[in-house]
Amino acid sequence: MPSAPPASLTALLAGPDRPGLVAHTANWIFERGGNILHADQHRDGDANVFFQRVEWVPAAKHDPAAEAAAFQDYAAQKLGMTARVMASTARPRVAIFASKAGHCFHDLILRFRSGEMRGELACVIANHDDLALSAEHYGLRFFLIPVSPKNKAAVEKRQLKILREQGIGLVVLARYMQILSPEFLAQCGVPIINIHHSFLPAFAGAKPYHQAHARGVKIIGATAHYVTPILDDGPIIAQDVSHVSHRHDVDDLQRFGRDLEKVVLAQAVRWHLENRIIVNGNKTMVFD
Amino acid sequence: MPSAPPASLTALLAGPDRPGLVAHTANWIFERGGNILHADQHRDGDANVFFQRVEWVPAAKHDPAAEAAAFQDYAAQKLGMTARVMASTARPRVAIFASKAGHCFHDLILRFRSGEMRGELACVIANHDDLALSAEHYGLRFFLIPVSPKNKAAVEKRQLKILREQGIGLVVLARYMQILSPEFLAQCGVPIINIHHSFLPAFAGAKPYHQAHARGVKIIGATAHYVTPILDDGPIIAQDVSHVSHRHDVDDLQRFGRDLEKVVLAQAVRWHLENRIIVNGNKTMVFD
Amino acid sequence: MPSAPPASLTALLAGPDRPGLVAHTANWIFERGGNILHADQHRDGDANVFFQRVEWVPAAKHDPAAEAAAFQDYAAQKLGMTARVMASTARPRVAIFASKAGHCFHDLILRFRSGEMRGELACVIANHDDLALSAEHYGLRFFLIPVSPKNKAAVEKRQLKILREQGIGLVVLARYMQILSPEFLAQCGVPIINIHHSFLPAFAGAKPYHQAHARGVKIIGATAHYVTPILDDGPIIAQDVSHVSHRHDVDDLQRFGRDLEKVVLAQAVRWHLENRIIVNGNKTMVFD
Amino acid sequence: MPSAPPASLTALLAGPDRPGLVAHTANWIFERGGNILHADQHRDGDANVFFQRVEWVPAAKHDPAAEAAAFQDYAAQKLGMTARVMASTARPRVAIFASKAGHCFHDLILRFRSGEMRGELACVIANHDDLALSAEHYGLRFFLIPVSPKNKAAVEKRQLKILREQGIGLVVLARYMQILSPEFLAQCGVPIINIHHSFLPAFAGAKPYHQAHARGVKIIGATAHYVTPILDDGPIIAQDVSHVSHRHDVDDLQRFGRDLEKVVLAQAVRWHLENRIIVNGNKTMVFD
Repeated sequence: MPSAPPASLTALLAGPDRPGLVAHTANWIFERGGNILHADQHRDGDANVFFQRVEWVPAAKHDPAAEAAAFQDYAAQKLGMTARVMASTARPRVAIFASKAGHCFHDLILRFRSGEMRGELACVIANHDDLALSAEHYGLRFFLIPVSPKNKAAVEKRQLKILREQGIGLVVLARYMQILSPEFLAQCGVPIINIHHSFLPAFAGAKPYHQAHARGVKIIGATAHYVTPILDDGPIIAQDVSHVSHRHDVDDLQRFGRDLEKVVLAQAVRWHLENRIIVNGNKTMVFD
Repeated sequence: MPSAPPASLTALLAGPDRPGLVAHTANWIFERGGNILHADQHRDGDANVFFQRVEWVPAAKHDPAAEAAAFQDYAAQKLGMTARVMASTARPRVAIFASKAGHCFHDLILRFRSGEMRGELACVIANHDDLALSAEHYGLRFFLIPVSPKNKAAVEKRQLKILREQGIGLVVLARYMQILSPEFLAQCGVPIINIHHSFLPAFAGAKPYHQAHARGVKIIGATAHYVTPILDDGPIIAQDVSHVSHRHDVDDLQRFGRDLEKVVLAQAVRWHLENRIIVNGNKTMVFD
Repeated sequence: MPSAPPASLTALLAGPDRPGLVAHTANWIFERGGNILHADQHRDGDANVFFQRVEWVPAAKHDPAAEAAAFQDYAAQKLGMTARVMASTARPRVAIFASKAGHCFHDLILRFRSGEMRGELACVIANHDDLALSAEHYGLRFFLIPVSPKNKAAVEKRQLKILREQGIGLVVLARYMQILSPEFLAQCGVPIINIHHSFLPAFAGAKPYHQAHARGVKIIGATAHYVTPILDDGPIIAQDVSHVSHRHDVDDLQRFGRDLEKVVLAQAVRWHLENRIIVNGNKTMVFD
Repeated sequence: MPSAPPASLTALLAGPDRPGLVAHTANWIFERGGNILHADQHRDGDANVFFQRVEWVPAAKHDPAAEAAAFQDYAAQKLGMTARVMASTARPRVAIFASKAGHCFHDLILRFRSGEMRGELACVIANHDDLALSAEHYGLRFFLIPVSPKNKAAVEKRQLKILREQGIGLVVLARYMQILSPEFLAQCGVPIINIHHSFLPAFAGAKPYHQAHARGVKIIGATAHYVTPILDDGPIIAQDVSHVSHRHDVDDLQRFGRDLEKVVLAQAVRWHLENRIIVNGNKTMVFD
């Protein structure tokens, strides 16, 4: 294992397109002694919007946090752009929402433990206790909050309180199976990534593997997306598929699907934590 | 190149499930001196229906056509099953319906010419003349039948006449871009395979690549299916997909899509001509 | 969840090809009141060998174990074929050999716990203690047997003793990283499945991801195979691949590779435990 | 179809890494009134080399050819880097080398005709006449130059003469099946792209599908690479794969392989003509 690379800053920029934006940001970084590691950009020609992801190592003499703030100021005041800057050493705190199914739950946690993810698992919030013992083994706080049609508002209030107390920066719905209310989404204040067990926009809603089997498709899929108030309609981050045939029953589709869900959800979470995703309307740009 | 294998018969059977069906068909073939090359079966447990594809070399003393008829009789009278039997030497005549786009048109024809397909290309029916010269080069009859909202009924009448006169056994819509009327479908009498340029059931209808781009999906697809009176809803035969990203515009999606469409349509046509597909309700079984 | 299907028997047959084999086995099953669920066969034309996998529900009046033995006798004496028959209720005991890396270890165990696998995890044998606590959490016996160049023979002797005492029917090398001696293989007596972290036959031997990176390939892979005395040369069971680019360093390849290794190894183990694999020379037939 | 985008220039830069390179090139372009459309870069950390692909629209007042030359000068003199600059309007002349097999030949030509490729097909050089009539239909010059062990030197001399006379900028070996001598490669002076019908480095050399079938692999592939004096060892540009099983014989592998070869070769040729590939030692960077 080589020595760790120096801490870097990654900025995601978005704003009205105009000539010289690449030069301006590169110059700012160069003149302050920084060294660009990666830079990637995209233009939405229809909307005339420019997007960039740039990663650089700031000069050792600058404090990274101050440098990040300085870049944000520069982007806002001189370029008219919003910038989200994150240090490579940052480890946002992540909450997993789960229910009974354990495949995404275990997969995510094992990836965090193996160092694949630039985040820190803070806690698990679940409406069933099936995964409580495992969470304990992993050393994770486990909040059991059963949900019924009657107590939904109280449940969400308690969930929001936990998110705030735990200082959560990202919520991951690891097959949580409950629809979050628009009120929850409005007050949550941090991004929420969900895994839907179909190849969206096909088979939105409930029981997608049953829908897929009934339709006789030859490929099934899974979709990770940011959650918005419209069910299964948020910006798509990652998708993957498996070939199936008439020989496979719904159980088989679910088994294949679990493997897809694990990989697709983990990829989306990793990209988010590495500050690689910009949401543009109802679409994402992933600078991978 | 080794010597050609002996001519074989392939039966597709369907009917109510009951014990002994595998034994009965295998015995019938064995007792008449035949040798089974492949056998595959499937049960639809919900509907209690049994399906089988069996391929065998009949004894040399039997005429293959008579043997095929005898098997059909046996299946109907002793097993209560329908059987579609086809000789490996049969070469159904195929009509291609095309419009302006040439990619599936050329791809299909080149595959027939290279010997990949167990069929004989009979003619091309097109509503534009863009592909007329190429059809001529390939030595294929080309029927130019322009379509307008007003003449649709007359056009379909003429198309049906050509199909009958040419002894067509399979129609392939190679990006024909016109919707065939329920009347045409009712009178056509032969299967029709269409290629839809999306991953059905997502993005049915017109301009699927535009729909896919607008939705921001990360994977696009193509779907080959049998045509039924409900648009883009027929039994799916084959599907394939490509990964895409925000970097790809609609033109890119269309270019990737052309490669998908060619491969998926060719696969569906090949499977059909090799008597590998049974339609069960709105789903297919492909015995590949 | 529907009620469990009745117990079935699955036979893997292999022997000289001759007419009527499909009929003979189907008849034997039918006449004893059994009902065939699936049957699949393959001919190796060059070697004139016939292979079949047939799964059936025996009549309730017959003891499944006796029926399995009767089928084996019939195949051997009347058809001249070897048959390996396994009941769907059988749960072979499985030993995992591991080292430091945990990804395949956790993945396999979680799949056994979720009911995906028709086997019973018996124990873990490891040459490092990194996974000891996890094994304990999973309730698995963990045998720590450190390996050095000097103690290899003694180590293998002890491993073989454990396999016998534990009644192991399958050994899975979950990134064990040690080469098993020909003596071990000769005395082991049960199949061993290994996961190799490359797309064999490319990059056999050590550090395949480094080899792949140095060669500049655009796709990496993983291969599950039965272990034979020749390193990385045994019959291939399953393979899968991921696209990579110049942007990915060796660490990235290893990360992608871990996901491939987990899925490919699990698939091979599942197929083996469902009695779906026949080894024919240095190749496998997988009746999936 | 929207109006054509303005002509752009694309530069591929390579040279020793040092701070400020992104800023320097972006500034040069900005200060001369250009507008960057895309920019992508890569560092080879081991060798401390920096690579960049940058595409920009030069100011209307500048002649694109002069601007390209000016950029090359700037890169060489101020940055110590080599730059290969190409206008989006350039259409390098391409020669196809073919033999008997037509699949890559037809596929490439149809793609050039459909406008997918930024190049101009100049001629076909073949050692058999199987494709002569088709070349004529496509309106392409066809040079029939039979090859025997005795006349190889004379053949290559004639081929080189044609390449020079035709002003060829890229040679594509579309299943040419002949090994080009080191002398030919030394004198050719333009890049040569070959399609190898295996997943290199597995199964280099002759009859790869036979090798793959004999080894019992579960995935086959195709590889497009630049030709170097070492057989099948040049820098890999693109690869793709298909899953296969024991049911597929060598003919099936060849059929699947043809589809892979077409797509992989076309992709490599397209990337080359769009100035997206930098060769770095024996590896490629593809800025797609």
